[in-house]
Amino acid sequence: MGRWEPNARDRLQRAALELYSEQGFDQTTVAEIAQRAGLTERTFFRHFADKREVVFWGENALHELFVDAVANAPDSASPLEGIAAGLEAILAYFEHIPRESARQRQAVITANARLQERELTKYSSLAAGIADALRRRGTAELAADLTAMTAVSVFKVAVESWIDATDDRDLSQHIHGSLDELKTLVADG
Amino acid sequence: MGRWEPNARDRLQRAALELYSEQGFDQTTVAEIAQRAGLTERTFFRHFADKREVVFWGENALHELFVDAVANAPDSASPLEGIAAGLEAILAYFEHIPRESARQRQAVITANARLQERELTKYSSLAAGIADALRRRGTAELAADLTAMTAVSVFKVAVESWIDATDDRDLSQHIHGSLDELKTLVADG
Repeated sequence: MGRWEPNARDRLQRAALELYSEQGFDQTTVAEIAQRAGLTERTFFRHFADKREVVFWGENALHELFVDAVANAPDSASPLEGIAAGLEAILAYFEHIPRESARQRQAVITANARLQERELTKYSSLAAGIADALRRRGTAELAADLTAMTAVSVFKVAVESWIDATDDRDLSQHIHGSLDELKTLVADG
Repeated sequence: MGRWEPNARDRLQRAALELYSEQGFDQTTVAEIAQRAGLTERTFFRHFADKREVVFWGENALHELFVDAVANAPDSASPLEGIAAGLEAILAYFEHIPRESARQRQAVITANARLQERELTKYSSLAAGIADALRRRGTAELAADLTAMTAVSVFKVAVESWIDATDDRDLSQHIHGSLDELKTLVADG
């Protein structure tokens, strides 16, 4: 025990998502995940607090990338340019996530009410973080909240459309598509 | 028992929100709510399934008002005009809710993580309902989702700003302010 296991986190995450897909999140135990990954439960708990954390692992990094990019946008940037910078920054996070993994993960969440609630909470806390960053840049209270929620909506729709797409456009293109959609929505109104 | 109690639902709801504010949602029992309202537990359960439902009672009516208004907007209405009609329609729901009650209710939700999750789920299901109504009107998939989430953001921000406001503007004015904010956000980007 305690010895270094190459790619243990990745192997555990892959095994967990496979099992959650096959037999359901509630029906899967940590023992089964460890076994499928060819590792021990102890190794699992060195990497994840519990089996739910496997699903949301990496979300904090994404949150940080997004919020930092908004905070560090040039002073001259408008709120919308700030969130465009945030959306650009998170592409680095998705670079190493194959679309098939993202699709599998989303299907696992969709199948479980508790995971769905958890996902909504994550999105809500991302919006709160973005709103704080905007307020620190001088954006007014109401505008900061609305901009942050809009940013998260644009992001959610882009990821959803990337996951569902049958063509080869990458996430970056879906994000631009989603931002354009927002502009069209408001312009046509 | 069983006799008609005038305004039982209102009295129970008022008593419940008072107790949740004073001593916390988790610490309050249905027996205490009934006692504070001068009614029986049996009467409580004739009106509400459980003590959580008291907090979200009426949300289904709001959901229906919003979605029906989007569905019934003139064929010529743009998606943004559709959601403006939805936002207009829910004012009827808020007409009989004093701002102080809305403020108290929001504080109860903010103080309890499970109630917050429940609120996010309610908002998410409202967005899904609006998106469906838009798709039935012929709005494309991605545009419908983005428009619906934007509608819910505009609504959330308007209610938040109405609750926090120190002036006498009514919810309708906050909704128009929030919609204008959205237009400014996108126009300035």
